[in-house]
Amino acid sequence: MREAKRMIGRRAAGGIAAGTAMALATPNLAAATPRIRWRSPGSFPKSVDTLWAAHERFCQKVSELTDGAFQLVPSGPGEIVPALQVMDAVGQGSVECGFTGAGFYFGKDPTLAIGAAVPFGPSSRHTWSWLQAGGGREIMRDVYRDQGVHAIPMACTGAQMGGWFRKEIRTPEDMKGLKFRIAGLGGAVVTRLGAVAQQLAPGDIYPSLERGVIDGAEYIGPYDDEKLGFHRIAKYYYYPGWQEYAPSVDMMVNAKLWDALPAHYRAAMEAAGTETWHWVMARYDVLNPPALRRLIGSGTLLRAYPRDVLAATYRATQEVYAELGEKDGRFRRVWEHWDRHRLEQVQWFRVAEDSLANFIAVSTAR
Amino acid sequence: MREAKRMIGRRAAGGIAAGTAMALATPNLAAATPRIRWRSPGSFPKSVDTLWAAHERFCQKVSELTDGAFQLVPSGPGEIVPALQVMDAVGQGSVECGFTGAGFYFGKDPTLAIGAAVPFGPSSRHTWSWLQAGGGREIMRDVYRDQGVHAIPMACTGAQMGGWFRKEIRTPEDMKGLKFRIAGLGGAVVTRLGAVAQQLAPGDIYPSLERGVIDGAEYIGPYDDEKLGFHRIAKYYYYPGWQEYAPSVDMMVNAKLWDALPAHYRAAMEAAGTETWHWVMARYDVLNPPALRRLIGSGTLLRAYPRDVLAATYRATQEVYAELGEKDGRFRRVWEHWDRHRLEQVQWFRVAEDSLANFIAVSTAR
Repeated sequence: MREAKRMIGRRAAGGIAAGTAMALATPNLAAATPRIRWRSPGSFPKSVDTLWAAHERFCQKVSELTDGAFQLVPSGPGEIVPALQVMDAVGQGSVECGFTGAGFYFGKDPTLAIGAAVPFGPSSRHTWSWLQAGGGREIMRDVYRDQGVHAIPMACTGAQMGGWFRKEIRTPEDMKGLKFRIAGLGGAVVTRLGAVAQQLAPGDIYPSLERGVIDGAEYIGPYDDEKLGFHRIAKYYYYPGWQEYAPSVDMMVNAKLWDALPAHYRAAMEAAGTETWHWVMARYDVLNPPALRRLIGSGTLLRAYPRDVLAATYRATQEVYAELGEKDGRFRRVWEHWDRHRLEQVQWFRVAEDSLANFIAVSTAR
Repeated sequence: MREAKRMIGRRAAGGIAAGTAMALATPNLAAATPRIRWRSPGSFPKSVDTLWAAHERFCQKVSELTDGAFQLVPSGPGEIVPALQVMDAVGQGSVECGFTGAGFYFGKDPTLAIGAAVPFGPSSRHTWSWLQAGGGREIMRDVYRDQGVHAIPMACTGAQMGGWFRKEIRTPEDMKGLKFRIAGLGGAVVTRLGAVAQQLAPGDIYPSLERGVIDGAEYIGPYDDEKLGFHRIAKYYYYPGWQEYAPSVDMMVNAKLWDALPAHYRAAMEAAGTETWHWVMARYDVLNPPALRRLIGSGTLLRAYPRDVLAATYRATQEVYAELGEKDGRFRRVWEHWDRHRLEQVQWFRVAEDSLANFIAVSTAR
């Protein structure tokens, strides 16, 4: 925080960021291969090693693609900017770029949540097709620009888990009064079901669950959850993670710096983003199954949310969207855009993709 | 073909390809940003506009990432190399690189099929996680190197459709005697079911089906199939495409040229490959649903393969793999590697991914 203030102080004094912007704007450099070094603070601590590795990998890829000319230096939360102020620091130009999730900032603008993860949102493939070929990047552009940033989708976890509970969830009634740590718009949804939503930083979840301050918590999936040790204090592990089906987090770049960047450096950042987005998911896909086996081996009881709990949650979610859309015309417009895409994809996937997935799942069941 | 002979003639005379390799090997150039121009013949005609667009996009991305220094010039099948000789031309160095599918060449080495698509293979996401984080690229490396090429996964269609038939397929018995156009290892599978497998080039499928030379044909999916007009001569459109769940096709680069390429040019080709692989699938995902609606609107009858037909096909597939594995130790080793990955992923996906996909499919059914 002190460091972040120092950064902002520097900027006020016409410091590093502004200097970099001017250097980039110099015509002879813009046409060539300027040597650039940017700071890239991130919201994800080194303990979430998958996302930290993604941050390092992205920076490495940009360096490789530019033959070492364009260097990004990753740092963890609190090193130069606090975890949940990365977008602000980038937008204001106190740092050049940073790795964060738009969903953290939905209090500033609810539409930012659609750039990250919203309850019962699209699957990873539907998210990607929306972003890359369905007009998603284009419609989200202004949403990010209003925050002073250009956003490059950079990591996705795939479907998360529903969460850890000390007691079984048998009916929608069991959600009533439950103190549940849940991120983002998911909180508004469970509030409608009578739960008490809690927003807690990752490091605070375990002690809160241990002391009974909360009754349940969702975090990410088997690999990350195991490291935080939830299985030692909560027995029931629910799926699916309706609140985060395919959360996408971004490399955010100060918009003015982005516009001044040579085209091949912009291409390098975009390509590194795509490469890393899919690499992170591939890594999670490889790491999660053995982690889930270890959890089950240590006594965790895997449970599917009962169908009527999911159905009540789905209805509450639609109400939350309708309410947000009434208050905010842009949210409604963007939500309708991705919802059309999502529904079309869901319908099509029932034909060739899901039918084969389901046949194979049954045929290979052990 | 004449052009291909001319190319080979040139190469025999120590022509372009060898010259390029020598230029690349010059130390002062290797460290800098040499201007390179390579020919990139492809196996997919311009009429398959999605894959042709992928070919153009890949070349464009490589150019963007290298600030225009590294140029690839795409060409269609037969322009400089015949469609199904691209790998050979690249491996022999008569062209520098080319866009083709390893599955076309499984007659040379059955393990090549695993780099492309095999019956009841992994889904798109499981294919990608195998390639990028599950050791797939590494284990396939020597398989490609034996053909003289380095392969970069460059396009995926997602799950294809099962095919077009003039009559309904109600039981496994209905496959007996059926003359069915089917690509790759799928042919060996349907042969076990008593069908007569036909390998036909795309342009020959329609006239063969129209004249009754064949009784059915699989090609790709709604968007591409519609353009070939199968719905005008066959009423039943079956799903899922068990023979090609997530076919992956490659940019193949002559292995010696690849090794001599500056590291940031290799990085550019790899990044362009990843970007294009996912872009092609995103495009198919966006284009297929309206195409399927148009087909149904024009009278096509959509049919799911009956469960016992799929089950018989699945059993026949496992027999084909076992037989290939007995004959070829490397096939068995690679097949076991991806099959382990596939089964682990299928099991894990039943938890968080498929359960949510299925709930949403039912909740949004129209």
